[in-house]
Amino acid sequence: MSGNTLGKLFCVTSFGESHGPAIGCVVDGCPPGLPISAEEIQVELDRRKPGTSRHVTQRREPDEVEILSGVFEGVTTGTPIALLIRNQDQRSRDYGNISETFRPGHADYEYWQKYGIRDYRGGGRSSARETAVRVAAGAIARKWLQERYGIVIRGFMSQLGPIPIPFVSWDEVSRNPFFAPNAGIVPQLEAYMDELRKSGDSIGARIDVVATGVPVGWGEPVYDRLDADIAYAMMGINAVKGVEIGAGFECVTQHGTEHSDEMTPEGYLTNNAGGVLGGISSGQDIIVSMAVKPTSSIRLDRRSIDKQGKPVIVNTHGRHDPCVGIRATPIAEAMLAIVLMDHALRHRAQCGDVMTETPRIARLAPQGVQRVPPPRA
Amino acid sequence: MSGNTLGKLFCVTSFGESHGPAIGCVVDGCPPGLPISAEEIQVELDRRKPGTSRHVTQRREPDEVEILSGVFEGVTTGTPIALLIRNQDQRSRDYGNISETFRPGHADYEYWQKYGIRDYRGGGRSSARETAVRVAAGAIARKWLQERYGIVIRGFMSQLGPIPIPFVSWDEVSRNPFFAPNAGIVPQLEAYMDELRKSGDSIGARIDVVATGVPVGWGEPVYDRLDADIAYAMMGINAVKGVEIGAGFECVTQHGTEHSDEMTPEGYLTNNAGGVLGGISSGQDIIVSMAVKPTSSIRLDRRSIDKQGKPVIVNTHGRHDPCVGIRATPIAEAMLAIVLMDHALRHRAQCGDVMTETPRIARLAPQGVQRVPPPRA
Amino acid sequence: MSGNTLGKLFCVTSFGESHGPAIGCVVDGCPPGLPISAEEIQVELDRRKPGTSRHVTQRREPDEVEILSGVFEGVTTGTPIALLIRNQDQRSRDYGNISETFRPGHADYEYWQKYGIRDYRGGGRSSARETAVRVAAGAIARKWLQERYGIVIRGFMSQLGPIPIPFVSWDEVSRNPFFAPNAGIVPQLEAYMDELRKSGDSIGARIDVVATGVPVGWGEPVYDRLDADIAYAMMGINAVKGVEIGAGFECVTQHGTEHSDEMTPEGYLTNNAGGVLGGISSGQDIIVSMAVKPTSSIRLDRRSIDKQGKPVIVNTHGRHDPCVGIRATPIAEAMLAIVLMDHALRHRAQCGDVMTETPRIARLAPQGVQRVPPPRA
Amino acid sequence: MSGNTLGKLFCVTSFGESHGPAIGCVVDGCPPGLPISAEEIQVELDRRKPGTSRHVTQRREPDEVEILSGVFEGVTTGTPIALLIRNQDQRSRDYGNISETFRPGHADYEYWQKYGIRDYRGGGRSSARETAVRVAAGAIARKWLQERYGIVIRGFMSQLGPIPIPFVSWDEVSRNPFFAPNAGIVPQLEAYMDELRKSGDSIGARIDVVATGVPVGWGEPVYDRLDADIAYAMMGINAVKGVEIGAGFECVTQHGTEHSDEMTPEGYLTNNAGGVLGGISSGQDIIVSMAVKPTSSIRLDRRSIDKQGKPVIVNTHGRHDPCVGIRATPIAEAMLAIVLMDHALRHRAQCGDVMTETPRIARLAPQGVQRVPPPRA
Repeated sequence: MSGNTLGKLFCVTSFGESHGPAIGCVVDGCPPGLPISAEEIQVELDRRKPGTSRHVTQRREPDEVEILSGVFEGVTTGTPIALLIRNQDQRSRDYGNISETFRPGHADYEYWQKYGIRDYRGGGRSSARETAVRVAAGAIARKWLQERYGIVIRGFMSQLGPIPIPFVSWDEVSRNPFFAPNAGIVPQLEAYMDELRKSGDSIGARIDVVATGVPVGWGEPVYDRLDADIAYAMMGINAVKGVEIGAGFECVTQHGTEHSDEMTPEGYLTNNAGGVLGGISSGQDIIVSMAVKPTSSIRLDRRSIDKQGKPVIVNTHGRHDPCVGIRATPIAEAMLAIVLMDHALRHRAQCGDVMTETPRIARLAPQGVQRVPPPRA
Repeated sequence: MSGNTLGKLFCVTSFGESHGPAIGCVVDGCPPGLPISAEEIQVELDRRKPGTSRHVTQRREPDEVEILSGVFEGVTTGTPIALLIRNQDQRSRDYGNISETFRPGHADYEYWQKYGIRDYRGGGRSSARETAVRVAAGAIARKWLQERYGIVIRGFMSQLGPIPIPFVSWDEVSRNPFFAPNAGIVPQLEAYMDELRKSGDSIGARIDVVATGVPVGWGEPVYDRLDADIAYAMMGINAVKGVEIGAGFECVTQHGTEHSDEMTPEGYLTNNAGGVLGGISSGQDIIVSMAVKPTSSIRLDRRSIDKQGKPVIVNTHGRHDPCVGIRATPIAEAMLAIVLMDHALRHRAQCGDVMTETPRIARLAPQGVQRVPPPRA
Repeated sequence: MSGNTLGKLFCVTSFGESHGPAIGCVVDGCPPGLPISAEEIQVELDRRKPGTSRHVTQRREPDEVEILSGVFEGVTTGTPIALLIRNQDQRSRDYGNISETFRPGHADYEYWQKYGIRDYRGGGRSSARETAVRVAAGAIARKWLQERYGIVIRGFMSQLGPIPIPFVSWDEVSRNPFFAPNAGIVPQLEAYMDELRKSGDSIGARIDVVATGVPVGWGEPVYDRLDADIAYAMMGINAVKGVEIGAGFECVTQHGTEHSDEMTPEGYLTNNAGGVLGGISSGQDIIVSMAVKPTSSIRLDRRSIDKQGKPVIVNTHGRHDPCVGIRATPIAEAMLAIVLMDHALRHRAQCGDVMTETPRIARLAPQGVQRVPPPRA
Repeated sequence: MSGNTLGKLFCVTSFGESHGPAIGCVVDGCPPGLPISAEEIQVELDRRKPGTSRHVTQRREPDEVEILSGVFEGVTTGTPIALLIRNQDQRSRDYGNISETFRPGHADYEYWQKYGIRDYRGGGRSSARETAVRVAAGAIARKWLQERYGIVIRGFMSQLGPIPIPFVSWDEVSRNPFFAPNAGIVPQLEAYMDELRKSGDSIGARIDVVATGVPVGWGEPVYDRLDADIAYAMMGINAVKGVEIGAGFECVTQHGTEHSDEMTPEGYLTNNAGGVLGGISSGQDIIVSMAVKPTSSIRLDRRSIDKQGKPVIVNTHGRHDPCVGIRATPIAEAMLAIVLMDHALRHRAQCGDVMTETPRIARLAPQGVQRVPPPRA
């Protein structure tokens, strides 16, 4: 039940510090027989890795993954898959000057109080660098979900600071460094980011993730609801401060006649539920939205204290993302993939496999008319 | 790792259906020596129970709790505490007519597809009635947190449909049936609800919960972050569609200079973090907000299908809450209490007890100036 | 991860003290659609219950079980099954005189040191009375294993103190109060027990349990091996001090040529492995043996101490089993059933269902010639 | 809840195959501030590593451990400690000839049936090579237990095939390659092993482990009893077929007057309980004994089948231990250390820390007269 393990049947145990020798994870519970290679995992890692545009951190990390176990002759064996990523560009000197002070917005003070240890090397374990291993593990989950159920998991940036990004097309997402589903708005995003970078400040963002093709029936009624586990996974991403499923906070002002999704023989008419009812997938798209706070590491002066409790001024001149939300999309996709795979296995354990089990009941039109992706005012 | 168990060290295993013989739970891992009685638990249950005002369901459930084990001579023994609540007013006839159809907005269809079973008795396991056991278990957590650390957990309704409820005072919360922290607005809420009830429709709400006095250092850096576990717990409450910590979705438009909370020798200057940084409590108030969707059981006609996939019209004439958010406040408080207690024990396991351990380090001003409760625009 | 929960997917959470209001459990993770009734569970409980012969405790406990949830219209719904057994014959006065002293061989002193609580009512939580709930939960597991896979789980007493009980026939087991698979030896056992009872002393026993029909492939390679989980379950039964799988301790003096079971196209030639190799079931019978210590509650004088550390003499005049091993057989069967069901679900989660999955590989002769039950010198 | 994770609070997640790139583990939940180095862990690994005498496998594995995370400036940080051991001498060619057949006594057939995969490289995951990571993780547990509580964990071989090894002195254990606590018997053991090696056969062994200094009160009453978790851990070691606590199977023939350990103000008079009563440590030595089966890889001809189910003759000419029990002592010690540390943390979580908590109750003489180590007839 370690705090660094994600999932109950598809289990990802993460390790590593930003500026230690390596980061990595052990993926346990993966079904045998899945073809997977380091190259496939690398593709996902490359989407998240630093240094790919001027809008993200310039730290040089190839994020090259090595598979240490659990794969033999190109397929998973059913035993634990260990993934290793050596840290390359670990300039600890960047951080030495902060070893005696606490950076505002970071967890420096909290770690120090919790553990009695001040690992000042780039935030140590609290660094978003750890999210690389989530992306690596997520690549395995994604492939299995795709191969076995045809599930597709895709995310995009839906808002950059004050700029909402209307959804136009999934195709656009991979064509710009923002994961924006909208080519027309990219120049505005670039201009905004260039200005921001000059100012030395940072900004928040909103990321949406959608899973299409999830069978009806995954999840648990109480506590380990599918939406609860998704909320846990998303709020567990560094810098996330809010999570919504489907209509999210809009439901506060909705009437029942507006919110609850009517059903017809052709399917649901709307998807305010975001694909989850009573903690169980409805067969509609799973729709998740999250708020990513602005980077705490900024060049501007901030008030703080040192280990002796004396007031100090902190500013950060390392290599940082001015908007951590930009690289959050692949992470959010990975987290959703891991949660879904975990629940796929849990469902199969208790109820048998929808793919092989003789259906106990006639399956009704599961999909129907959908609002995809969710509109944001 | 059952799906019906909440918590890893303070474990609440829930059981029971809305219209079965009983609901209840087993609370395992509670420290020994805590004075607790059925009467104390009853006080919390009475805050949530139905039938207390005209604005909530008129189902008559005394929700009387019996302690079956784990308490001897008035104190906890360290062994599992079983709590039992017999269902009294289980008019299953109210539901017989829906046994062949699926109610929109409910999980009827999802349960049927998942389990191949249609327990039509008031939603069975998916009923919000189950939340009574969370409140009962939460009463134990709350008492321990209060006695050992002086932690106070309080919630309130911050918005009822279109009506924001400005925070005035904690004292007001218990004086009206809405858990509104504002006496002046109560007539407006009553008028709104009376009108709504007549219309046959339902409405959403926003609930805020605040924990004061949480020591710095609780939580885990990765995955089982304190905020991730809170998000899991809150999204796991029936009808919740969104969860925020601290600034929540407001952080999307915030700059780093605005969002990240500066520190001074006197404490943090703001609390946009909502009391959690890097997954670990900061010593400031834990501030959580959640969106509760409108009740799906309404008297108005809704399109749906039956078990044969034929179109039907469904409307619900049972005894229902027109705004389930009204009774959600004690539930949210209970969930927060359970999560905090779980992390208190987890922290004590790994790092020793802040109350008894000789401090490894000087404790710095942990509290400071706070925005309490969080303002909502 | 509560200490009072058995199993990871088929989870039994136990509660209750010997002389409190009730004992019971919550069974979570049971597949839906299994026909089960209180009467079927009662059949198993009646095999274990006290007062059925002069050789066991004369406490009068009907051990009547009530199903509180998780079963609707005669079948499991997939939601938690709560089972309740009220205590009836709870003469706490039998125990009042020991509230200040510690009974040798019991855990009185250990509980008191661990929890700071002295629940003197018949051992409280440490009483073997708790095992009734294991038998109740096991009845569900057993039925599912039998219905789905044709697995049969049977136990017997293989030694009573100095008297080895040669295996003759499964049919005999239910025809005598000792669960002896041998009618001819019963008079000797009765005479031994009558003599023992008069002496006021108690005696140990050996119990064997065999599961037939377990498919090849259940278990996990490392840590959660099938045999490791069986050892955990059996050593977790009150009074058990030793557990063997297959040849058990005999393997110490065996050569490889003798111990390792040869395979032929017709199957394994022997079963020294006891049906488990590398932590995974081999398709042969699972064969387990355990040592049950003599009852610690005896009428004869024993030296002990009281809460002040002063020397005292303790003897116990309550209603006790002179050989707790006699009633241990149904408990051991139940524990094995629970472990096997748990691993059946775990296997199905990761590898799919042997009953429905198109076989990835041709199944080879899995059973073959077996030594059943295992001979004991 | 992955099957490859040992422990609930001190969690060891293992990975790696015998002939893959590496083996290793992630240790999560370790308290911060423990001084630990790769060198200290190496000391333990060197006790288990192959090639140290002619009586064990001649595979050349330096078993050099690298700490990848969780240790900073020489002490644990409280974050996951990843340990990596690269495989060096992985002559897969030794195994190529067995890729189509199943070795008797090994889990080849079981893995193939479970996973549909035949990883023929030296047993893959089922190889005892995996136990190196247990020893590495155990080195951390051991150090913490020693530093914080003064606990000493020591094992020895108590029987080699037909030769019982009377306990003489702990000092002798490290002076011979058998971990025999008896110098006088070593020539007999050497002669026996030399003869055995020539014959091409293998032999079983018995290993005893003792933990001294364990405080009273560790463990859980039901299911996760300290002895149940120890049985799980020991039966989870490759080749172990039986586990005893204290008197073990001797208790079958003991009377209550003989078995139950009397208490005096000076302590317990005997230790038939093996240091655990009711699942909770008594303060006496924890005494465990286990049976290790003879190596299945032998040079002599054995009947088996191939993947097509045809009969074949198998013999193994790789580099194998003729008695795997010889190297089992450090593994058993490591497993006991991990279980004890896990329960130390669990106890601290629920009941507070015996080292810092103001004692709720006067501690009585906890140790007393002991039978250490346990005599074996």
